[in-house]
Amino acid sequence: MRAAIFKGPHAIEVGERPDPAIAAPTDAVVRVLLACVCGSDLWYYRGETPHAQGSIGHEFIGVVEEVGADVRGIAVGDLVIAPFKYCDGTCPHCRAGVSSQCVAGGAFGDGKIDGGQGEAVRVPLAGSTLVPVPGTKHSDEMMRSFLALSDVMCTGHHAAVSAGVRSGSVVAVVGDGAVGLCAVLAARRLGAARIVALSRNPARQEVARLFGATDILAERGDAAVEAILELTDGVGVDAALECVGTGQSLATAMGIARPGSVVGVVGVPHAVENPMETVIFRNLGLRGGVAPARTYIPELLDDVLDGRINPGRVFDFETDLDHVADAYKAMDERRAIKALIRMETKEADR
Amino acid sequence: MRAAIFKGPHAIEVGERPDPAIAAPTDAVVRVLLACVCGSDLWYYRGETPHAQGSIGHEFIGVVEEVGADVRGIAVGDLVIAPFKYCDGTCPHCRAGVSSQCVAGGAFGDGKIDGGQGEAVRVPLAGSTLVPVPGTKHSDEMMRSFLALSDVMCTGHHAAVSAGVRSGSVVAVVGDGAVGLCAVLAARRLGAARIVALSRNPARQEVARLFGATDILAERGDAAVEAILELTDGVGVDAALECVGTGQSLATAMGIARPGSVVGVVGVPHAVENPMETVIFRNLGLRGGVAPARTYIPELLDDVLDGRINPGRVFDFETDLDHVADAYKAMDERRAIKALIRMETKEADR
Repeated sequence: MRAAIFKGPHAIEVGERPDPAIAAPTDAVVRVLLACVCGSDLWYYRGETPHAQGSIGHEFIGVVEEVGADVRGIAVGDLVIAPFKYCDGTCPHCRAGVSSQCVAGGAFGDGKIDGGQGEAVRVPLAGSTLVPVPGTKHSDEMMRSFLALSDVMCTGHHAAVSAGVRSGSVVAVVGDGAVGLCAVLAARRLGAARIVALSRNPARQEVARLFGATDILAERGDAAVEAILELTDGVGVDAALECVGTGQSLATAMGIARPGSVVGVVGVPHAVENPMETVIFRNLGLRGGVAPARTYIPELLDDVLDGRINPGRVFDFETDLDHVADAYKAMDERRAIKALIRMETKEADR
Repeated sequence: MRAAIFKGPHAIEVGERPDPAIAAPTDAVVRVLLACVCGSDLWYYRGETPHAQGSIGHEFIGVVEEVGADVRGIAVGDLVIAPFKYCDGTCPHCRAGVSSQCVAGGAFGDGKIDGGQGEAVRVPLAGSTLVPVPGTKHSDEMMRSFLALSDVMCTGHHAAVSAGVRSGSVVAVVGDGAVGLCAVLAARRLGAARIVALSRNPARQEVARLFGATDILAERGDAAVEAILELTDGVGVDAALECVGTGQSLATAMGIARPGSVVGVVGVPHAVENPMETVIFRNLGLRGGVAPARTYIPELLDDVLDGRINPGRVFDFETDLDHVADAYKAMDERRAIKALIRMETKEADR
C-alpha cells in the first residue's frame, strides 16, 4: 500500500509500505477514507522532537476491511472512527475513563505500528478501540466532523472538561489552533455563557465565532491578561483553557484564571515548567493532558450525528495522499488551521 | 499587652505591643486563649523567607472582648475560632468559597496587623471572619481541636478536597508534619478506604494511625514510589496529597498518583517548579493552595463538636507565652509535631 513516510525534518514523502494484515486475533484492518495532520505532528516535522523514520499520522476514519477472530462489536464494512491511541478497554486506566493511559495501549504512527496517513492501517485491540458510526451515506461535511473526533475535538473537549466548564461558565481559550477552536466549541456545548477566544488571525477568528466565541481578543501576554481581567471585573475567568503548550501561553492562562479555578491544559509542552507558587498562592489548579479520545467519542459522536456540533469546520485545507507534504507545509506555515488528506478510496467502500 | 515578637531569624522574644482597640466599625478585639506555631512560621524563623519584625502567628482561638458597631453575628463573650486569613465574605472569591483569596483580606501576623501569638488581637472584618463556637465549658481536648481548625486541619482538608478524595478512595499522604497528619484525618473523614502515610518517625506514625492511616511507609523518594506502586498493583493511588512543599515531595506525589487523578498540593513551595510533562503525558492534575479556612470551619467544627474528629491530637508540645521561643525551637528541631501556646487567661473569660 501507499502511505506518507517521514524521512526526517521537513521531508515527508509518499512511499510503499507492506499491506496491513491481521497479526493478532484482536486486530482489524481499516481502509482509510480521511486522515489529517495534527499540530503535534509538526514537532517532529520541524525537527523539535525525535521521531522514527517511517509511517506517520494518528488521526483517521475508514472502513473495516478485515477483523481478527476475537474482535467484537466491529464488523467488516463498518465505518469507524479511530481514536488516536488504541486501548484494551479493560485495564484500570481505561475503566477509570483514562483510555489514553491504557497499559496495553499505544499511538498510531508511533514508530511501532501503522500511522493513519496511508491507505490502510492495522488496528490493534480493534474491538475496544474503534468506534463504529451508525448509518450510511453521510455527507462529506459530517465525514469531516467524524474525522475531527479522532483527536482534535476530543482534545478541545478534554481541556474544557478538565477545567470544569459548565452551564454559565465564563471561559477563555488561549490558542487559536484547531485544538483551541475545538475547545471553544466544547465550552459552548457544555453551556458556557461567555467564551473569550484569543486570536489575531481573521480566518481563525471566524471559526471561533462560528464555534461560539462571544468575544475575540487580539492581545497577547500581559496585555491579554489585563484585557481579560478588565472584562471580568478583575476576577478572572471561571475556566482558562491552555491549548498551545508554551511557557508564555501557560503564563497567560494562569494569569487570567480566577483563584480557585482549574486551568485546563492540553497544549503539548516542551521543557515548560510551572512555578508551584501560582498553584499554591493563587489557588490555581492545573488539569488535562493527553485526551482519552476513546472515552469521549461516543457522546461527541451523538452530537455530531444530531447536527449539534460540526467540528469538521476546522479543516480549511484539503489534499490527497500524493500531496501529503503540502498538508504539512500549509500547517507549518500557518496557512492552514488543519489539513485534511483524502484517500482515493472507491465510493463503494463506504 | 504582651505578645511574641519576631526580631530576626532564630530570635523570637516576648515583648510589649499596644493593646488592640477597635479601629473600624467592622473590627472586633479577641482575647486569645490558645495559639500555636505553624510549619510556615518556620520559614521566616529559619531565615528562608523575609518577615517584618514584630507581631507573629496566625492561628488562635479566643473570647470576643469588644465589637465594632457594624459587626454582625459575633457578640462580646463568644468563644471564636479565627481562620488564619480574615475575609469580607462578600467578594467574588469569598462567594465562590475561596475565602483565602478575599480581595479585602489578609493574614494575621503578616506584618500589618496583630499576630495570634499574643494576649489579644484586633480582628478586621470580624463578622465574616470569626466563627463562633456554640456551647460553653468545652473540655481542653476539644479546645485544642478548635484551635486546629484555625489552619492545620483546614489545610489538610483542603489537600483531600482538592484531590477529590471520596468514599472508597485509595489515598497516600506525602509529609508527616501536622498538615500531613490532618490530611490523613480529612481523607478518613471523606470516606477513604485505604490511607498510606509516609513517615519514619514513630510519634508521627502513631498519630497517623490514630487519624486513620491503614498503611505506614518509611520509604522516601523513588523507594516510596516503588513501594506504593507495588501496593496498588502498579496503578497508583486515587489521591496523592502533597503536604511538604519541596521538589522531592512533589516528585514523590506525582510518581504515586494514578493517571487521571489530581494531586492535592498544600505544601508551601520555595522555588519549586513542576514540569508540565507530568501533567500532560501522565494526565496528572494539581490542585490546592492556601486553604479557605473560613469556608471549611463550619462543617469541620460540627464534626469536632460531635466527637467525630479530634485534630487537636497534633499538638504534642505545650508552653506559655513566656516560653514561646521554645515552641519555635521544638518545631524547628522536629522534637514537636505542633506546638501550642496557652495564654494566661482567667478561666472566667471562657
